[in-house]
Amino acid sequence: MAEPHRVVIIGGGFGGLNAARALRHAPVEVTLIDRRNFHLFQPLLYQVATGGLSPANIAAPLRAILEQQANARVILGEVSRIDLADRSVQLGGEPIPFDTLVVAAGAQDSYFGHDDWEELAPGLKSLEDATEIRGRVLSAFEEAELSEDLAARQSWLDFVVVGGGPTGVELAGAIAELARHTLKNNFRRIDPAAARIVLIEGEPQVLPSFSPKLRLRAQRSLAQLGVTLELGARVVAISPTGVTVRRGDEVTEIPARTVLWAAGVRANPLGRQIAEQTGTAVDRGGRLIVGPDCTVAGRPEVFVIGDLAAFQHGTERPLPGLAPVAIQQGRYVARAIRSRLAGREVPPFKYRDRGSMATIGRARAVAAVGPLEFGGILAWLAWLFIHLLFLVGFQNRLLVLVQWAINYFTRNRAARLITGEPAARFADLDLPAARAADR
Amino acid sequence: MAEPHRVVIIGGGFGGLNAARALRHAPVEVTLIDRRNFHLFQPLLYQVATGGLSPANIAAPLRAILEQQANARVILGEVSRIDLADRSVQLGGEPIPFDTLVVAAGAQDSYFGHDDWEELAPGLKSLEDATEIRGRVLSAFEEAELSEDLAARQSWLDFVVVGGGPTGVELAGAIAELARHTLKNNFRRIDPAAARIVLIEGEPQVLPSFSPKLRLRAQRSLAQLGVTLELGARVVAISPTGVTVRRGDEVTEIPARTVLWAAGVRANPLGRQIAEQTGTAVDRGGRLIVGPDCTVAGRPEVFVIGDLAAFQHGTERPLPGLAPVAIQQGRYVARAIRSRLAGREVPPFKYRDRGSMATIGRARAVAAVGPLEFGGILAWLAWLFIHLLFLVGFQNRLLVLVQWAINYFTRNRAARLITGEPAARFADLDLPAARAADR
Repeated sequence: MAEPHRVVIIGGGFGGLNAARALRHAPVEVTLIDRRNFHLFQPLLYQVATGGLSPANIAAPLRAILEQQANARVILGEVSRIDLADRSVQLGGEPIPFDTLVVAAGAQDSYFGHDDWEELAPGLKSLEDATEIRGRVLSAFEEAELSEDLAARQSWLDFVVVGGGPTGVELAGAIAELARHTLKNNFRRIDPAAARIVLIEGEPQVLPSFSPKLRLRAQRSLAQLGVTLELGARVVAISPTGVTVRRGDEVTEIPARTVLWAAGVRANPLGRQIAEQTGTAVDRGGRLIVGPDCTVAGRPEVFVIGDLAAFQHGTERPLPGLAPVAIQQGRYVARAIRSRLAGREVPPFKYRDRGSMATIGRARAVAAVGPLEFGGILAWLAWLFIHLLFLVGFQNRLLVLVQWAINYFTRNRAARLITGEPAARFADLDLPAARAADR
Repeated sequence: MAEPHRVVIIGGGFGGLNAARALRHAPVEVTLIDRRNFHLFQPLLYQVATGGLSPANIAAPLRAILEQQANARVILGEVSRIDLADRSVQLGGEPIPFDTLVVAAGAQDSYFGHDDWEELAPGLKSLEDATEIRGRVLSAFEEAELSEDLAARQSWLDFVVVGGGPTGVELAGAIAELARHTLKNNFRRIDPAAARIVLIEGEPQVLPSFSPKLRLRAQRSLAQLGVTLELGARVVAISPTGVTVRRGDEVTEIPARTVLWAAGVRANPLGRQIAEQTGTAVDRGGRLIVGPDCTVAGRPEVFVIGDLAAFQHGTERPLPGLAPVAIQQGRYVARAIRSRLAGREVPPFKYRDRGSMATIGRARAVAAVGPLEFGGILAWLAWLFIHLLFLVGFQNRLLVLVQWAINYFTRNRAARLITGEPAARFADLDLPAARAADR
């Protein structure tokens, strides 16, 4: 009997996990490699970052998901090298050989060449990022409560979110609700509602991928929540005390002790290895320009999907880095592998845009589904429903539902814990040493 | 109008929090100081450490608990100095004056002079400890799955828990269930049930504070779960590859890559400051010997309660470091303060022992309530009920109940995430650098 066809998948995100699951009845041997032991539901990361949900609620252990799939194994590790000539990937020990490779390694935050900004303005890509941001935001209110000096106090109540895409909008809205509602009676010296939340976006409007009507609606909702918009403004500097933005020739200083980054991503560095070995072109964000069947130039056995791929066939612009794109590409790749093994033709990948939505806060969202565009509570309920539906695992769905219901009625966010090594958290900011050691 | 009486409480654990809440109608100004922004329900920490619950499920933000209590404020910070002559406590900034001081600063792990063991055998006192242990236990199975070498593989499946009190018993039982049931079909190369869990206890039996009958019952339950008991054995050395124990003259080497510490605690170092300033005696664990009214020698305005106090009046041995003792002392102190302010006599503190219980695993527990002693599912249900009852916050109760129900029926532990900086986690063990960097 012939050896089964070996499919190696790098990355257990939306793309990689869906490819693995869709191969469950295929005559192949699937190896899923991830540096984490869980699949992360990134669209809800901002709720962990603002204390509404716990990390485990939006994560599902990969081994549990694939437990019953006999043809799949999981390896916890980080791929250091892909060798296309040898058809193998390298982790710590022996190389892992493949017949087909699916690279779904995703993206990370991009600071556009200013890597020194990362410490000052953490992004929101991992669970660690989320608990770090949660700690910074909550600690800022604590610092404000401890400050004797009025100017220092307000500087701790100044928050800046850089980036007006869905993540930035959701984060800014959630911090505003945290300050105005959740923390309302929590302090004795400060009024948390005095917090100023500024959302900076380089384009003239937030949510650039949405229609002008929905963009304005989202901006109205943000304003109602008390978020200040700085539109058409580009960040030129970030310091421990604030952000400098430029709008044309005008340079403005926005004071803030807490700055969060949601402005852009770049592809996982593994993309460069594939580009070098195949001569595949990459776009500005480091994404590999893939063919109509999601493979790279001259390597029909190498699929690249999700945030690592720039797919532009039959579409005006490359497909955006969204979960539905990765999910559909993952399933497509599994179909393509099955077709090939059966000697059938592989039709090109076609993305079905089922719409997009962004939530701004309690009962506030915008949604575009086909020709329909709507906002308010209807869009918000649709958003809740879709996110619950796509969350992996019955237990996670139930726990998130219960917490959302409680959070809706009480405006509480019970997971607002400041965790991690206290001294380390502020080590990079210019706090007096004594104060940092204190917490 | 006179200034209100200022009560400063150090520590938001069971003792401090209950003192603060019981003072809600008293004509005092309460300042509760904690280095954490949440109250931690320590008895369920082992469930976080084994992936059954999320950190936020057993933590409640202190500010949320005291939100409606107008006479209480919370300060996030670590007390560096207590000055009894000046009647003030020192944090980062200005000293905080008090008229009455309640010190409920708790305890930390004690390695009996072997502080170098801490890195090799983490204890279970904080949420960070719990997620650290969770990461180590789950990573050990991952390491075993990656090992080509059979001996190395087994060494990763060897776990040692040091200490046969309730925490050690609960931890060993939970790891056994994790290995035998939760992870059953999760791996392809290893059988997680091949894990060997060894519980080391210096006394001849586990749960020394329970009756001989219940101790034997607990030992039977542990054996049924597959936990190996090493009784009457004292740890003399811990290395990255195992634990050395001595039983009389006999020295045995127990191999294990993962060692967890539940063997003893010592009082918070703040106790020493009080001892030095008052001449109060301390016991072997650093606990302050308090008077019948929980105050220290010559300082009727300084109460010491909970794990920091050694209370031995009308009892054979000092009261144990358990939640019920701290809770009752906290409430007693509040009553004492109110009585004094009203010019009434303060009766001495009297502990009402309502019984004790320990859980060993699913449907397995032991309980002693007054003259009644029982085990099995009845004790386990009583344990569940009591713990739900004492958990702070409606949301936590509901979420824990839902997860326990799901965990009971599916034997799943959905919160089995490996989080934290991967490279750092193994930095202190003698892993090949490449492997450590891998994860």
